[in-house]
Amino acid sequence: MRIAQVPPLYEAVPPRLYGGTERVVAHLADALVELGHEVTLFASADARTRATLVPVRDQPLRLDAAPLKSDLAAHLSMLHEVRRCADAFDVIHFHVDMLHFPMFADCAGRTLTTLHGRLDLKDLADAYRRWPHYPLVSISDHQRRPLRFANWIGTVPHGLPQRAYPFSPRATGGYLAFLGRISPEKRPDRAIAIALEAGMPLKIAAKVDKVDLDYFHDRIEPLMDHPLVEYVGEIGDRDKPAFLGGASALLFPIDWPEPFGLVMIEAMACGTPVVAWDNGSVPEVVDDGVTGRIVDSLAAAVAAVKEVAAYDRAAIRAVFERRFSAIAMARGYEALYLRLQSAALPANALPEPPAIADQRLA
Amino acid sequence: MRIAQVPPLYEAVPPRLYGGTERVVAHLADALVELGHEVTLFASADARTRATLVPVRDQPLRLDAAPLKSDLAAHLSMLHEVRRCADAFDVIHFHVDMLHFPMFADCAGRTLTTLHGRLDLKDLADAYRRWPHYPLVSISDHQRRPLRFANWIGTVPHGLPQRAYPFSPRATGGYLAFLGRISPEKRPDRAIAIALEAGMPLKIAAKVDKVDLDYFHDRIEPLMDHPLVEYVGEIGDRDKPAFLGGASALLFPIDWPEPFGLVMIEAMACGTPVVAWDNGSVPEVVDDGVTGRIVDSLAAAVAAVKEVAAYDRAAIRAVFERRFSAIAMARGYEALYLRLQSAALPANALPEPPAIADQRLA
Repeated sequence: MRIAQVPPLYEAVPPRLYGGTERVVAHLADALVELGHEVTLFASADARTRATLVPVRDQPLRLDAAPLKSDLAAHLSMLHEVRRCADAFDVIHFHVDMLHFPMFADCAGRTLTTLHGRLDLKDLADAYRRWPHYPLVSISDHQRRPLRFANWIGTVPHGLPQRAYPFSPRATGGYLAFLGRISPEKRPDRAIAIALEAGMPLKIAAKVDKVDLDYFHDRIEPLMDHPLVEYVGEIGDRDKPAFLGGASALLFPIDWPEPFGLVMIEAMACGTPVVAWDNGSVPEVVDDGVTGRIVDSLAAAVAAVKEVAAYDRAAIRAVFERRFSAIAMARGYEALYLRLQSAALPANALPEPPAIADQRLA
Repeated sequence: MRIAQVPPLYEAVPPRLYGGTERVVAHLADALVELGHEVTLFASADARTRATLVPVRDQPLRLDAAPLKSDLAAHLSMLHEVRRCADAFDVIHFHVDMLHFPMFADCAGRTLTTLHGRLDLKDLADAYRRWPHYPLVSISDHQRRPLRFANWIGTVPHGLPQRAYPFSPRATGGYLAFLGRISPEKRPDRAIAIALEAGMPLKIAAKVDKVDLDYFHDRIEPLMDHPLVEYVGEIGDRDKPAFLGGASALLFPIDWPEPFGLVMIEAMACGTPVVAWDNGSVPEVVDDGVTGRIVDSLAAAVAAVKEVAAYDRAAIRAVFERRFSAIAMARGYEALYLRLQSAALPANALPEPPAIADQRLA
């Protein structure tokens, strides 16, 4: 199949540091090539990909030192370019929220739109009601809740390449790990409380965004002043496998409706179990009792970190490979692309989106 | 004529505090009604207007306390609504940068797009080249420079209602005025240097945005510790006429390509001359020697504040009424609307935009 991938232009594809969406699209494009498809990636010129790259900007927006740039103009120009060669593709797969809705209405039936963010924003429902013909994909079923009425055609969990995260048969470090961002909704304070209560060392590898500096200094830094807590700062892709693979568990004590939570499957890839709060996508990502425990209290979390340390790490890796590898993700999308092709209706002949119960893929 | 006005949704129309674009559109809509047109305003529900209001959001985005909202979705929904009833208008006048370009290509010839911001941003040229058929209006000729090739059909300076700014025959306060925002490109430090060198009192009425707090505390606050300098904080519309009318001159010592500079015409409306740096729109807004002086050095500015204090304030007001009243602005746009109507070509039959020399209105 001839497939176009259209990620946002904020980070490189894949990102040099952070950037969940661009990372997932990079892995998806490569895995679709591996499955034999003809894949075209629209991205900034520094993308590293096995797909055919159409460079639409010299560099990603967030890495561009130019003081004056326009995110909107850059993305609209990219979409204009996609539009110009739309006929060359069987499926156009968008990852830019709803920015493309005004431009592809006449071929919406052969587009797919994966929504990567939370959807409980005030203005979204009205907008998605106004463009009901775009087939949408969620990254967890929970993510859909604020827009149940929308034209969902499937849920495809994120996936990561198996080679990038080698299996670690033993938690040689014997510590708990917290990886990501220091911010109120990620609850690093809860992670510290769990570790202290369990009497286990905690390593925190996390960046601090400018907006969270006050929170970090006022609320978290004081808690870090304890012999069991070590703050290792921000780490890159290269250090992640050792950091996660050496941990006896990843703590994911979030306080917000996480649409997916890539770090959970990064840990699972290394064989490391996850202790996660019952929020957002968590019950869909963690197989309770196999790849980790889903908890909702400090006491339960403390009990869980001791319990999961004894889990079969090879079994955790096996679940990762089956459910959350890049190839598994690509197969999930491939099935949806084929469904669009077999429907083969012109966009304006598409029926109104059915009720959500009928739309879920098996 | 049946005219639609489509301002951004960030502030109320007109704004309760700041917000240049929404303010100008509010005045334009009212003045077009005064000229006998049938005007429809798409805006948030709290707009105060003589036009017919189509409320497209319960409140403006920046005044909305909802923690999670989407600027993009809100604006796309508004444009969808405009699109839905596009046939009801002879002209649709957009003030939302280029966000509408993907949606009105088939009727671009009866749209007008006023660009309200600076245009020297990296991604703009490519995007404006991709959508060349939208007739564009600049708010100063200088504003066009980074996009000379674009489809400009005229320059219409901003205008303000004559009633809102009563004429002040004498500068009873005997001070220099600085009004607007404390930020590096507005150069409040230069204003202070001019006042001290001239030995005249300076009153600074300005807000400090969060992003400029460091600049304010580190660079400007220490300079304010002088008997000639008074910081009066942020003032609203009600206090502006007295503040500007009492001044012997407005200082506008900017260091950036200001596309228009509303505060200059606010001062002129009160009869107050302007001493402004030679940047951006300034030579088009200030009649050098009549409504103020255009300078490019501290020495010239100091000489100018003494010179302009003797200017004929009634003559300044007269220039404001002729060139920068809301009615003058509405007449400027009316002429462009009529030109679009008389062209009456379908969008796809529009010729390529001519060279810029041919496009300027007299």
